[in-house]
Amino acid sequence: MEPSLATPRTTVHRLPKRAAYDRATINAILDEALICHLGFVADGQPFVIPTIHARRSESVFIHGSQANRMLRTARGGAEVCLTVTLIDGLVAARSAFKHSMNYRSVVLLGTATEVSEPAEKLAALRTIVEHIIPGRWDEVRQPNEAELKQTTVLSLPITEGSAKIRTGAALDDKEDYALPIWAGVLPLRLVIGAPIPDERCAAAIAIPRSIAEYQRGG
Amino acid sequence: MEPSLATPRTTVHRLPKRAAYDRATINAILDEALICHLGFVADGQPFVIPTIHARRSESVFIHGSQANRMLRTARGGAEVCLTVTLIDGLVAARSAFKHSMNYRSVVLLGTATEVSEPAEKLAALRTIVEHIIPGRWDEVRQPNEAELKQTTVLSLPITEGSAKIRTGAALDDKEDYALPIWAGVLPLRLVIGAPIPDERCAAAIAIPRSIAEYQRGG
Repeated sequence: MEPSLATPRTTVHRLPKRAAYDRATINAILDEALICHLGFVADGQPFVIPTIHARRSESVFIHGSQANRMLRTARGGAEVCLTVTLIDGLVAARSAFKHSMNYRSVVLLGTATEVSEPAEKLAALRTIVEHIIPGRWDEVRQPNEAELKQTTVLSLPITEGSAKIRTGAALDDKEDYALPIWAGVLPLRLVIGAPIPDERCAAAIAIPRSIAEYQRGG
Repeated sequence: MEPSLATPRTTVHRLPKRAAYDRATINAILDEALICHLGFVADGQPFVIPTIHARRSESVFIHGSQANRMLRTARGGAEVCLTVTLIDGLVAARSAFKHSMNYRSVVLLGTATEVSEPAEKLAALRTIVEHIIPGRWDEVRQPNEAELKQTTVLSLPITEGSAKIRTGAALDDKEDYALPIWAGVLPLRLVIGAPIPDERCAAAIAIPRSIAEYQRGG
């Protein structure tokens, strides 16, 4: 049986039918999302900061400048919460109360550790670049020693978490179905526009495969 | 002069040129975003939960079930962090290190208060529905007393916060501009698909204006 990532802290109490605790579901949402929102506590105040993440196997990497407060806090072993959310649609019901959204979200809890061994750090950065633009790493200049030193990479193990998913139509109250009010779903998706070349990019440089064939999501 | 929402806790230290602290900038980002990520602390653990928000004047409303832990925690006067992020593009640079994203984000800090007076609560719920689908409130059945009782609405004053914005091209190292590597931006935007009517929606019910003319963002 697939191990569950549920713990008392990550068990969904509101609308538990929407919850999932298996790695396959959680991984698919982590992998599709471009960014996460990382929560940490500093001086008793919660902070939530958007940042790029990338999963490899049973860990999620985050990275940033050495001076970054979020990374300095998390590196010290503080508890963090890493949340990703994909919005799939707006659900228009017959009553104001039953309006909703279709979404897929993941909440992970835990403590992160620093990835400091140079080869592992480089591999983690590769995972991050490839998460955002698959195929890009091999097209560009690799990080040099100074760049590696300026960057902090943390790894959060995927051991405790949950996914929550809403799909489908509005769920109106029985008596409201008779009302002459339109109900339905407005699907939403992230769309990639035509690539805009850098002004300083010579016209002779072709758009590479990673960009020309870029796709995300379903 | 426009008052600033900067405090020592919300002053951006990393890449301060990308920061803004004026209400006009912050409000525009809050208003475009469909959801926020709310951070709170429970038993020492930070949690980050996606939820719908809506701004009216100098406050942001959030809402949910009375049983919702996030709202119960925030209602008690706990410090929260409300963050919204809009992703505008992927920035492909000539070096792996300089890859980035174009985005607009807002981080608000503070404590929320409950909106319990029935008329104010109803007005707040109207603001929330209208934030997601402008014009929808007047097309649908309004909340009844039982629905109002089941819902908790909180108001977070916009008094302490910051926006952070990245736009434009990749910023490569001087020597990297000579490399024969494509660089540029992949623009991203949230696109609304054709409305999908509920199976139980009579064909005679026309798609209302709020849905037919739905738009979001730039």
